[in-house]
Amino acid sequence: MNFLNGIAASSGIAIAKAYRLVEPDLTFTKKSIDNDTVEIDRFRAALDQSKVELEGIREKAKVELGADKAAIFEAHLLVLSDPELVSPIEDKIKTDKVNAEFALKETADMFVAMFESMDNEYMKERAADIRDVTKRVLSHLLGVQLVNPSMISEEVIIVAEDLTPSDTAQLNRQFVKGFTTDIGGRTSHSAIMARSMEIPAVVGTKTATEEIQNGDLVIVDGLNGQVYINPTAEEVERFKSEHAAFEAQKAEWAKLVNEQTVTSDGHHVELAANIGTPKDLKGVINNGGEGVGLYRTEFLYMGRDQLPTEEEQFESYKAVLEGMDGKPVVVRTLDIGGDKELPYLNLPKEMNPFLGFRAIRLCLEEQDMFRTQLRALLRASVYGNLKIMFPMIATLSEFRQGKAILEEERQKLQAEGVAVSEKIELGIMVEIPSTAVIADQFAKEVDFFSIGTNDLIQYTMAADRMNERVSYLYQPYNPAILRLVKMVIDAAHKEGKWAGMCGEMAGDEQAIPVLLGLGLDEFSMSATSILKARSQIRNLSKSDMETLASEVLQMSTTEEVLEAVAKATQR
Amino acid sequence: MNFLNGIAASSGIAIAKAYRLVEPDLTFTKKSIDNDTVEIDRFRAALDQSKVELEGIREKAKVELGADKAAIFEAHLLVLSDPELVSPIEDKIKTDKVNAEFALKETADMFVAMFESMDNEYMKERAADIRDVTKRVLSHLLGVQLVNPSMISEEVIIVAEDLTPSDTAQLNRQFVKGFTTDIGGRTSHSAIMARSMEIPAVVGTKTATEEIQNGDLVIVDGLNGQVYINPTAEEVERFKSEHAAFEAQKAEWAKLVNEQTVTSDGHHVELAANIGTPKDLKGVINNGGEGVGLYRTEFLYMGRDQLPTEEEQFESYKAVLEGMDGKPVVVRTLDIGGDKELPYLNLPKEMNPFLGFRAIRLCLEEQDMFRTQLRALLRASVYGNLKIMFPMIATLSEFRQGKAILEEERQKLQAEGVAVSEKIELGIMVEIPSTAVIADQFAKEVDFFSIGTNDLIQYTMAADRMNERVSYLYQPYNPAILRLVKMVIDAAHKEGKWAGMCGEMAGDEQAIPVLLGLGLDEFSMSATSILKARSQIRNLSKSDMETLASEVLQMSTTEEVLEAVAKATQR
Repeated sequence: MNFLNGIAASSGIAIAKAYRLVEPDLTFTKKSIDNDTVEIDRFRAALDQSKVELEGIREKAKVELGADKAAIFEAHLLVLSDPELVSPIEDKIKTDKVNAEFALKETADMFVAMFESMDNEYMKERAADIRDVTKRVLSHLLGVQLVNPSMISEEVIIVAEDLTPSDTAQLNRQFVKGFTTDIGGRTSHSAIMARSMEIPAVVGTKTATEEIQNGDLVIVDGLNGQVYINPTAEEVERFKSEHAAFEAQKAEWAKLVNEQTVTSDGHHVELAANIGTPKDLKGVINNGGEGVGLYRTEFLYMGRDQLPTEEEQFESYKAVLEGMDGKPVVVRTLDIGGDKELPYLNLPKEMNPFLGFRAIRLCLEEQDMFRTQLRALLRASVYGNLKIMFPMIATLSEFRQGKAILEEERQKLQAEGVAVSEKIELGIMVEIPSTAVIADQFAKEVDFFSIGTNDLIQYTMAADRMNERVSYLYQPYNPAILRLVKMVIDAAHKEGKWAGMCGEMAGDEQAIPVLLGLGLDEFSMSATSILKARSQIRNLSKSDMETLASEVLQMSTTEEVLEAVAKATQR
Repeated sequence: MNFLNGIAASSGIAIAKAYRLVEPDLTFTKKSIDNDTVEIDRFRAALDQSKVELEGIREKAKVELGADKAAIFEAHLLVLSDPELVSPIEDKIKTDKVNAEFALKETADMFVAMFESMDNEYMKERAADIRDVTKRVLSHLLGVQLVNPSMISEEVIIVAEDLTPSDTAQLNRQFVKGFTTDIGGRTSHSAIMARSMEIPAVVGTKTATEEIQNGDLVIVDGLNGQVYINPTAEEVERFKSEHAAFEAQKAEWAKLVNEQTVTSDGHHVELAANIGTPKDLKGVINNGGEGVGLYRTEFLYMGRDQLPTEEEQFESYKAVLEGMDGKPVVVRTLDIGGDKELPYLNLPKEMNPFLGFRAIRLCLEEQDMFRTQLRALLRASVYGNLKIMFPMIATLSEFRQGKAILEEERQKLQAEGVAVSEKIELGIMVEIPSTAVIADQFAKEVDFFSIGTNDLIQYTMAADRMNERVSYLYQPYNPAILRLVKMVIDAAHKEGKWAGMCGEMAGDEQAIPVLLGLGLDEFSMSATSILKARSQIRNLSKSDMETLASEVLQMSTTEEVLEAVAKATQR
């Protein structure tokens, strides 16, 4: 069989050569050697191979990244030729009769430790250079290949166990045509990243890194969740025409960029985008987003050594509000903890982090941090249409505490003469079952709800969405989930408030008909899903979907619901 | 201040001297010594003190536990006088000029390793003896005191960080009058144990082991969750009379042992007990239990090296069914995983074990293990009134799979000519929010529900009940929880089925009025809570409690609910 089944995580079709983003195994054992001359020759050969490789990388980098970025490889080449490093290694091989790998590592580690202990930035950088060079020479001694994703210069499909944020940051987006990974689901980082990059992805294949070699021709079918390895000419042709059809459809959708999102029977809903940084605004505008339904502020706090200042935050919030030019922007206050750690907060390890001290729970305790964020938001509020949302609210008391703190900061700012908008709506994420169940009580006090399905589903089903062994329980279409969604929407409407959704489910083709029927007011999704969703909604009748919704609420399993959705939407 | 606040975990009042069940710190550092004669004298003094101590323990053990149990201390005394152990230690001090602690530990470890490596049970026991004796001598060298809870011979209050099952197994129940611990809540092991031993306990005091010294007079007020340290004479008097009043009340309750549980307006409910082993049956009978509402079968699987056989299980199930003499016995199939590990199953570590691969999820995968348990249950079914219950059911598909496997095993047994009862009810634990929300769908297929509040609350509130930092969210009286309970009860009744509860909440004085009003049919609790609950229910009017229940369902916080309960039940 030449294909793998996985989870369709980002739609479209990509055909390209495989690039394995898999760290090679650089472990080795210490060995005694008989013939030190042979061993020294082995070492010199590895040095030479490393030099040739680095020169190639340097030249490529000069052309593609500029002389500036190429300088780092120049520094690596200097290390390789430095007799102060090379001689002691050769001496060690000769004197101790040990293998080159061991002599290299021992000697290099000593230099690294020495340079790192110096209180001098330049020397610390040299330590990093030595570490990088050592890895490269070791890779040649061991006959394995290092990965260097920043140097990819032809169209490729990335094959990885999983992709971390730092992996994806290194990728040259111009050349990456698709992803496939061993693990992950529709809500994993790799999947969200692929959708934001608008490239096809299939995740959770289990064995992609085992089955696919560097240079294999690979087809990623992000529409059906399959990956073909070294396909036949016929298969390539078939997928090329599917790709063309998909591109044509996308062009069709693109015509809707300035259109309203209105059902066939005239009901309007709002399609908004989930964003992580001000940089994401371009995608929102290009894809016709009617607002930002979820601005995940935690990215401001990540990848750094300390909390962002009020000023830094203010600038980001202002940029987003101005960029959206008066359209609504829902900012979620800090949602950290769980799978999102901030090392500098030194939070204790928890047995069950998803059920732990995170998001609003943490903010109500670490009030300085929370108040700084709220002040930055309040100050930015005059630059656009700001709505503030608290994450992980489980009880009304938590909401009331959070609201009281916000009001205190508002009054302090006003007393200082700082302008603050009078029209900031304050709402909550509904992602904990207790809050959905008594949404009617919450609706009397909040301005809006935004249903966070990723967490709501995992808590309602008591199944960690990152745990492969229980992933069968991550069921967005389970009637229990749909009923909770209904409770939230009905509760909002009864009090004249609005209800949105900012989980993955809001952009899901199979969920949209039901959500429309349940009366959802705002759908917030990856920007790249907006036009497709708009096209879908324009072809649906609200009243037909209401009938569908009331039917599925009385069903007992996910399978029945999906069948009913398929039947109601086929024409 | 001479008192600590904690959580009232088991009711009643105890006054006695403190016994700290805290492992002393036996760590030390290796030191060079100048004067080996002084060091050897130090060592001999510690040997002498250990001998005196062991002789005392041996004599006490002879009297209280019998010559049989005293023999172990005889063996320890022999080790202490053995020149083959003692001389090398003194030599080491002299030759290596090291401190006695180090010489003792090094030498003893060598002997232990030597004896343990021998394939001879007698020698292995000697290794254990040497290890015990080394600890004792070390404790004298370091001036700290070992704990030996099995030798407690006067009335004490146990003061500990937390109590593990093996700690409590060692306690001489005759002398232990109460517990107090630093950590834990109402559902922790220490709390459940205290209720089963019928002794007062206050857990979660945070600082009991810091504040209380051995021999301090301590009052444990398990009614109000307070611990008094070295109380005044007046305080002692006050609590003595409270204790007397409580004992009088217990005597009053004891008169209800053979009575029905009927409300003041004639509505009957069933009060059943939660048990872990057949040994617990005595308590069920003595406390007037009308059935077993939860038999936790995981104890059969714990504290051993391999799965229990079908025969072992059959014997236990039969014993419980026969012991209950035709009264209902609800057996929960294996609920392992989460915080309950079985090392021999080699389950992978999970990031969020409470949201992981456990209970029915595991059983549907490890079908051999599951089928063995079901066969043992089916075979035992003819000896009483068996009801089988699956834990952690999240979807109807899981229930249907479990039921199909049960039916297969029934048919196999019947084909083999084995008698199986035709009247076994099959139900589920409702402890996952999804199941509560679509209980109406489940009610068409199950025979009964038993609400497991411990887990239902933690999933509904998304808060790990073992995590101190979010323990404020473990809210049994949150209106969201009460609404879910109502959904389950109403769903059962609509289909003519019954609904019980086997979480801690079922025995809670403040919850009982509301649960009664919601229409709960069966309350399963610690056996020792049954008579008190019966007394309480006999004084409540079902129709008044229905009014209370419909009021609290419309409230928004735990605090409002508790206030309404207090108001409705005071007279």
